[in-house]
Amino acid sequence: MTRPGDFRVQATDGLARAATLETAHGAVQTPIFMPVGTLGTVKGVDPLELREIGTQILLGNTYHLHLRPGEDLVAEMGGLHRFMAWDGPILTDSGGFQVFSLADTRTVDDDGVTFRSVYDGDLVRLRPEDAMRIQAALGSDIAMCLDEVPKPDAPAGVLAAAVERTTRWAERCKATTPAPRQLRFGIVQGGIDPTLRERSALELQNIGFDGYAIGGLAVGEERSAMFRITESTAALLPHDRPRYFMGIGDPEGILRVIAAGVDMFDCVLPTRLGRTGAAITSSGRLNMRNAGFARDPRPLDESCLCSTCQRFSRAYIRHLVAQKEMLGMRLLSIHNMAFLLALCAAAREAIIDQRFDAFLVDALERLHTGAN
Amino acid sequence: MTRPGDFRVQATDGLARAATLETAHGAVQTPIFMPVGTLGTVKGVDPLELREIGTQILLGNTYHLHLRPGEDLVAEMGGLHRFMAWDGPILTDSGGFQVFSLADTRTVDDDGVTFRSVYDGDLVRLRPEDAMRIQAALGSDIAMCLDEVPKPDAPAGVLAAAVERTTRWAERCKATTPAPRQLRFGIVQGGIDPTLRERSALELQNIGFDGYAIGGLAVGEERSAMFRITESTAALLPHDRPRYFMGIGDPEGILRVIAAGVDMFDCVLPTRLGRTGAAITSSGRLNMRNAGFARDPRPLDESCLCSTCQRFSRAYIRHLVAQKEMLGMRLLSIHNMAFLLALCAAAREAIIDQRFDAFLVDALERLHTGAN
Repeated sequence: MTRPGDFRVQATDGLARAATLETAHGAVQTPIFMPVGTLGTVKGVDPLELREIGTQILLGNTYHLHLRPGEDLVAEMGGLHRFMAWDGPILTDSGGFQVFSLADTRTVDDDGVTFRSVYDGDLVRLRPEDAMRIQAALGSDIAMCLDEVPKPDAPAGVLAAAVERTTRWAERCKATTPAPRQLRFGIVQGGIDPTLRERSALELQNIGFDGYAIGGLAVGEERSAMFRITESTAALLPHDRPRYFMGIGDPEGILRVIAAGVDMFDCVLPTRLGRTGAAITSSGRLNMRNAGFARDPRPLDESCLCSTCQRFSRAYIRHLVAQKEMLGMRLLSIHNMAFLLALCAAAREAIIDQRFDAFLVDALERLHTGAN
Repeated sequence: MTRPGDFRVQATDGLARAATLETAHGAVQTPIFMPVGTLGTVKGVDPLELREIGTQILLGNTYHLHLRPGEDLVAEMGGLHRFMAWDGPILTDSGGFQVFSLADTRTVDDDGVTFRSVYDGDLVRLRPEDAMRIQAALGSDIAMCLDEVPKPDAPAGVLAAAVERTTRWAERCKATTPAPRQLRFGIVQGGIDPTLRERSALELQNIGFDGYAIGGLAVGEERSAMFRITESTAALLPHDRPRYFMGIGDPEGILRVIAAGVDMFDCVLPTRLGRTGAAITSSGRLNMRNAGFARDPRPLDESCLCSTCQRFSRAYIRHLVAQKEMLGMRLLSIHNMAFLLALCAAAREAIIDQRFDAFLVDALERLHTGAN
């Protein structure tokens, strides 16, 4: 018998890991990309399609769902799974990232944060206890602790204060009652300062969580520094707990955080690119508005097995994008997510087969060749 | 063995008919609603979903496809079926309706019509031969003759001239070479004048077509007059050929043209309503923006078996519509078309069982009760 929170590392190759995380709505095989269903929907995509492309776990945004339609309404409708007709695992973030990135006017104090809603400008108060109560009402499988997310270029003192506050908030989150069988992850902060990251990682482990996220990265800092600090931070986290990098969704970024020992990651990139007419492929990004694709009979990616690539030409998708047809955004969003999920599955296989290094080198080379 | 154009009337009940039309891409069981795939896509909907909801035949717009992406490109990509990944029957209109309804500036003469493209303002010339050549290049299963569509309130002389020109253009269309196994339908004009309709119907039958459409209606005239002229016109058309009412898609309208002896009909209504947040149901139309649905756990229509109604609450769809989420438009469009297709299937069964009158009375009563 398994129970939510069980985490089994099946194979490691270098720092990369292939593992299985059990949740109340099923098992998740890592490394895994998590599509983002901001407002209870992955934009433009049906949950049946998410299942078909191999989605194992979805992300929901506490900030957005709290404001629209509100966690009470979702709970009344049977919880987030039932509301959006997705019976697989769901991870909800804490709202912290949105509060600190979306709000122009927000005031943070030791007790919590006050911000103006992007929907109607209303003043909203979010304390660690609120974030956990909202996530419990939504009924997600994994709830994230509320963290303070400083700007990447914040001075050392601000970064240190954010780490300290994030630890204190994590203690308060831990003290709340989760939904039945709901897991809880802490979030490591500390910018790109290894000392602060170490302090944050150790303090959170002292509290004890079902998993640990690396937050506050991919927010404007140098990429090489980001990968470096990811690797050193992951090394400080317990081997027997899942590690989640918050907010990365380009193929190279995904491969590099896997190489650094990360198990889970999410990003709106594949759907945002899809809505703006771009395709993620094994040889780089394609701008499908480009007239050069007007008579291109090939699929978006010749090695892709998704339902978009099995049926439609670049010419057709270029036509849809040029005419702003909804189906174009849909087919591109589905392909982009399917591509990332297939990349994760291939990475997992390579880790299990102990050939991840060669896989990584080959995948990065193809991405950089850009031969389309 | 069957061949394209074979048309078998299996049952009649009053004027209503249940029949089967063979095409190069399969059989169509009538009465049947045809979803409209204007630009090579039914807006927001995947061809796999169209198949799942019971779509038997799609409509494509010659006007739009000629201008974007152009029939040559579509032909180069293997024809419209392959281009849009729909392997069932496709009917293409002639472009006549769009030329006469969309264009502010158009000049019609005996040879054809010149208009400005809605896409870029370019002057475009469309003659009967062009309409047929474009449809042959698209490779549709049923091609429509180019007709002149006068305004509903046009004076008698204008209506008569349009009938005369439509007949002469139909002769020229008939003289062209269709795509292999492509059927061709003539279009009866004549406004709501029974004498003109009779003249048009008989002249077209003298030329001889695989089927006959009733055009120039549902363009602003009184509905009672529209149904009356539909019935009298249908009675003038051959019993052994399909009859197509151009442009009707509300449940009552569909039921009444079926009752008048019509076999096929199309309309953008279900997808347009879907995109603007409205649901077609057996008890009338629902505006899903309405806050009254915010906590309504029921499906859009409790008797509907579509994948939207089987999985999602009105509360969820209201949330999606309120947040302008693409999935909301999609789920509503699918439900609306599924609803109309189920209505057609139920009408067909009622005709076969010789209880269409009772079915009609009951369906209209429920539509007008509006108990939601």
